[in-house]
Parts: sequence; C-alpha cells; structure tokens
Amino acid sequence: MRIALDAMGGDRAPVEIVNGAVRAVRLGHLQAADLILVGDEPRIENALDEAIGSEAFERRGLSIHHAPEVVEMHEKPVDALRRKKRSSIAGCVQLVKDGEADAFVSAGNTGAVVAASTLHLRLIEGIRRPGIAITLPSRAGGVTLIDVGANIKCTPVHLFQYGLMAHHYVESCRGIASPRIGLLNIGSEDEKGNDVVRKTREMFAATPLNFVGNVEGQDVFGDVCDIVVCEGFVGNVVLKVSEGISEFLIRQVADEVGSAFPDGKAPDLWQGTWNGIQGRLMAKIDYSEYGGAPLLGIDGTCVIGHGRSDAKAIANALRTTRDFVRNQVNSHIRTELAEILRSDEWQSGVQG
Amino acid sequence: MRIALDAMGGDRAPVEIVNGAVRAVRLGHLQAADLILVGDEPRIENALDEAIGSEAFERRGLSIHHAPEVVEMHEKPVDALRRKKRSSIAGCVQLVKDGEADAFVSAGNTGAVVAASTLHLRLIEGIRRPGIAITLPSRAGGVTLIDVGANIKCTPVHLFQYGLMAHHYVESCRGIASPRIGLLNIGSEDEKGNDVVRKTREMFAATPLNFVGNVEGQDVFGDVCDIVVCEGFVGNVVLKVSEGISEFLIRQVADEVGSAFPDGKAPDLWQGTWNGIQGRLMAKIDYSEYGGAPLLGIDGTCVIGHGRSDAKAIANALRTTRDFVRNQVNSHIRTELAEILRSDEWQSGVQG
Repeated sequence: MRIALDAMGGDRAPVEIVNGAVRAVRLGHLQAADLILVGDEPRIENALDEAIGSEAFERRGLSIHHAPEVVEMHEKPVDALRRKKRSSIAGCVQLVKDGEADAFVSAGNTGAVVAASTLHLRLIEGIRRPGIAITLPSRAGGVTLIDVGANIKCTPVHLFQYGLMAHHYVESCRGIASPRIGLLNIGSEDEKGNDVVRKTREMFAATPLNFVGNVEGQDVFGDVCDIVVCEGFVGNVVLKVSEGISEFLIRQVADEVGSAFPDGKAPDLWQGTWNGIQGRLMAKIDYSEYGGAPLLGIDGTCVIGHGRSDAKAIANALRTTRDFVRNQVNSHIRTELAEILRSDEWQSGVQG
Repeated sequence: MRIALDAMGGDRAPVEIVNGAVRAVRLGHLQAADLILVGDEPRIENALDEAIGSEAFERRGLSIHHAPEVVEMHEKPVDALRRKKRSSIAGCVQLVKDGEADAFVSAGNTGAVVAASTLHLRLIEGIRRPGIAITLPSRAGGVTLIDVGANIKCTPVHLFQYGLMAHHYVESCRGIASPRIGLLNIGSEDEKGNDVVRKTREMFAATPLNFVGNVEGQDVFGDVCDIVVCEGFVGNVVLKVSEGISEFLIRQVADEVGSAFPDGKAPDLWQGTWNGIQGRLMAKIDYSEYGGAPLLGIDGTCVIGHGRSDAKAIANALRTTRDFVRNQVNSHIRTELAEILRSDEWQSGVQG
C-alpha cells in the first residue's frame, strides 16, 4: 500500500505534518505501507532532518514527491486549483489518479481537497455527492458525523447515501456491526423538520440499515447512535461548536479548581491528582486522537485532517487511511450501490 | 404589570411551574407585577397548597385563570390548538390580547406557543417572522442565540430582522451597549456559506449595528460576539448539542475524578473541595440560571421556557419577562423599524 501525504497542508505545515509521518512510521501505524510526502522538496527535506535528528533513522518507506506550490488555507478552492497546477493537493490527487498511491491525506484547504478529488478522481458510480465523515468522542464510544462541510445543499438522496456509506465505513473501520444511524433533526417525531429531512427519514426507514430515526442535538454525544447524518452546514457548525464548548468548559473547570483555594493555588498533592485527571480528560476529548475524516463517495481514498493538525493528529489520520484501504470500504460501498441500483424497488427513490 | 404564566406547560407542570411562581414572588423577581396562573384550577390550587405549605403565605399578587385543556408536548401545534380551544396556551394568549396581561410565559409545546402568538397577537409592524432568542453561558459572559426553532425557512430579511431585534433586547435587558452581532456560518470569509447567509451578511454590513461578520461554531461560546444570528434548524441543533456535550463532559470529569483514587473514592477533604468546584461549575453552565427565551417580533410579550423547566428556571423566566416589559423592548424595535421603513436606502433591502 502506498499513501500520499500533503506535507504542505494545514496551519502547522510542513513541520508538524512531517513529524506526523515520522511518528506514524515509528509507531507502526503504517505497517507495510509506503509514504509519499508531497510538497516543496527542500522544505520537506529540512523538516525530515529536524524530525529524524541525529538518530540513524532509516528513510525506508518514505519518499518525497516535489510539488512547489501551496493552496493556502483561505484561498477560494476552485480559483486556487486553477492557478496553482503544481500544488501539493493537486500532486496528491494526481498520484492517486495515476495509481502511484492508493490513498492520500491532507490537512490543507478542505474546499480544495474536496474539489480536486471530486473533479479528478470522480465519484463511485451511483454516488451523487461526496461527504466528510468525522468521528468524535461520545458516550456511545464515538460518533461518526456526516457531512461536516463538503455539501451545504443536500437533497434526500445525498443524505441517504451519506448514511449508507457511513454504515460501511463504521462497520469496517470502527468495528461496529450494524451501526445505529440517526438523522439529525429538531425533534424526534417523524413529521418534524423540513421537507428534505422528512423525505430522507422515509428513505432510511425503508431499508434494512439500522436506522434509529430522528435524533436531536443532545443525542449527538449521547448513546443512541453511532452515526449521525446531517447536511454540511449543520454538521460543520456542530463540529465546531463541540470544539468550542469543550474548550470553554475545560477552562471553566480549571478556573474553578484554581479559585477553590484561598491563594488561588492548590496544594501540591491536590494539584498533582488534578493534573492527572485533566490530562486523561483532555486525551478523551482530543480531536487529534480520533484520526482524520474520510471524504466518502470519492472513487479513491481521500482522508481530510483538521486544519490545526499536529503530529499526533496526522499519525492518527494515516492510521485511519491505512484501515480504510485495507478494509476495502469503497469496494463495499460500490457493491451495495450496484445492488441498490439494480433493484426495482429502489430505482425511483435513489434516482430521485 | 401583569404576567400570565402557563401553569400546565412543560414536562414538570403544574408542580414545578407553580413552585417557580412562588419562588419568583419570594425572591422579589416580580416586584410590583401580578401573576396570573393559567390552567386547570383544581390542579393549580393543589400545587399552590403544596408549594405554600403550612406557612401563612399571602396570595397577594397571585391569581388563577381557569383553562381546562392542555396542549401536550408532542402534539402537532396547529391541530392541537384547533382542537383544544380552552388550552392553557390559548388562555395566556387571550389574556394578553384582551389587555388583561402585559406578557405571558410558557414552558409548554413551543410550536403551539409560536403559532398561537403569531396568529392571535400578530407581529410588530414590518417584522416578517418571530424568532426565539435564548441566552446561554459563554466566555463573553453570555451569548444570545436567535433563532432556535421558530423558523426553519429563513430568508435574509428574516435573519437581518432577528439581529436587529436581538440588538434591542440585549441592549435593554442584558445591559450591553452596542452588542456585537455575529452571523453563524461555516467560515469567517465574506464569501463563505449559502446564498441566504451571504445576502444577510451584506445587509448587516450596511447598517450602523455592531456587526462583527461571519462567526463559526467555535465562536458561539467564545468572546467574539454577544449575539449569534442563525436560522432555526441550525440554532435548535446548536442549543441542544451544547446541552448534550455539557452533560457528557461533566460526566467525564466526574468519572475521571472517581477513577483518580485507588478505591474509586476520593478522600473526604478532596471530595469536599471537588463538590464545591462542581457545584459552582454546574451553576455557571446551568440553562435554568439564564431565564426564558423571548419570542421576538410578536406584538406583545411572550417568553418561552425550556420544556424541562424546574422552579428555578420558571422564576428566572419570570424575571426576564418583567425586564422585557419594563424596558419596553418592543417599543424600541417598533421605533427603529418605523425609521428603517421610512428610509429610502433601506426600502429595497428590508422589503426584499
């Protein structure tokens, strides 16, 4: 297996990205996979020298593919891709298209990654739109939210296909048999929500998928479902709200701990225990523990990293990518879709 | 001032609602305001007897308006209102319409409260849709989110008017001069989001309102704005996600504290300190501390309580209602709208 990694993508590129690659190699996340670092060769070489330091680290399995241009985080995706033909994102996509890589990972401009993948790798036959599936910590032991920003104009078919694709991804990569799928809505009753959501609910209800019906905001981090389907605008807001409120709450807890002692400082023993608690808590809710977010629906494997990805987040995204390819998620999706497309019963609904 | 309170609305009605009324009276939340408890008279009498107990509590300022029917939480609003002409919600609205009350508070079926208010009290002249404005704890010392579920099909004019109304509400009732208004979007750049959001941004940018531009999910609980404007589907999800994730995190902290000690139990001194910390933390993030949510845009005052409202939440909602009436929020909105409607520059945009 060969994985291309966009070494220039993300707020902390290329250093943290290259560190992440080295970390993945050291932790054995990649196993037999080879890694192609895509981006500005001299800068990647420098970062690699830094990361490997004076140790006699072998570069076995690591190679560099030169791509001198960078799509910046705030550029308009389509414009930037048109102007910068030799960007690291374009380089990654080309490697996958040419069969030089089985998958690619980028923490760069999400819109550009989605646009380049959709345009050049195309979609799995029958899939209408790609969707970003991110897995977050929850009481259920993790919840996969799809879509979180690739598609802000969803039809019922888009949403239904997101659920179907996430089913295969979660079953294969999170190891949950028949994962529970919830449809994000503003009430649990069948008739709640707008027309798109109501029609989507009907589509899910008619399948053998483990559909638990409408779920509300409070259920996302609860224990009623393993997958939450929603349109990209809402999913993006939910994702970012959850990050924001976690930071807010953790800060509040820390403030309260500080002010619980007369001089604003806890006794050493207390503080030590508290530090341990806080560390484990942060690890539990840390997005970077949860790996990257596959762009489901692409005929090829594309995994998107958080724009703020550090080395740990990148290493975990590489592990997600390896699992995705090894478990042949796309092949499962393709087979199921082919069956659905053949089935008379489904023709109208899924084509609609 | 006279306030009608729907004694039958909410999961814990009538007991907690009546307790809330008594609490508000005892805490002086109502000052000179009289309170009319609306609902099934015998049940309200029983709850009042319970709440007042054997004390020689005077019922001065408290009266009962009999309404024998209840719109249940999960009934379809319009159907239920049509069938149950003598519901407590209809009773509250009628009291306001007849000038017998200046305002009403209900923690009952939100859809029914919105529908009954819109239909019978009508909207302030020039306002297109009512919006629910809820205030949540945040790093900014509180954030007012509008809309959280009254309107799931927003146009730019609806969203713009939500911001305008929330400006007056927050200035008058939260005491923040020129509050910062953010527009919830999936990126901070001007061109991000769908057409509705982009057009709304342009409308805000052309006013003297303190508009800070697009804000993202992580900013809702941050310190960049005092008001967040969004359409009702997204706002409802944000509200409920924030409740869900707060519960999830507090539970995680408690679990970690428990497991930080060998036998799962902290020493007494530690536990005492921790209990204090946890209590203050819960108070800070407790929705019930933040009062009810006014339904802005109604020509009359309607404040919506959380469906799970307990006595404290109801008492705080009554305080919010008193402030809303006393500060003449609707009159400020009416004056500003009349000016805008006269202004040539605005005719096209606001009428559009």
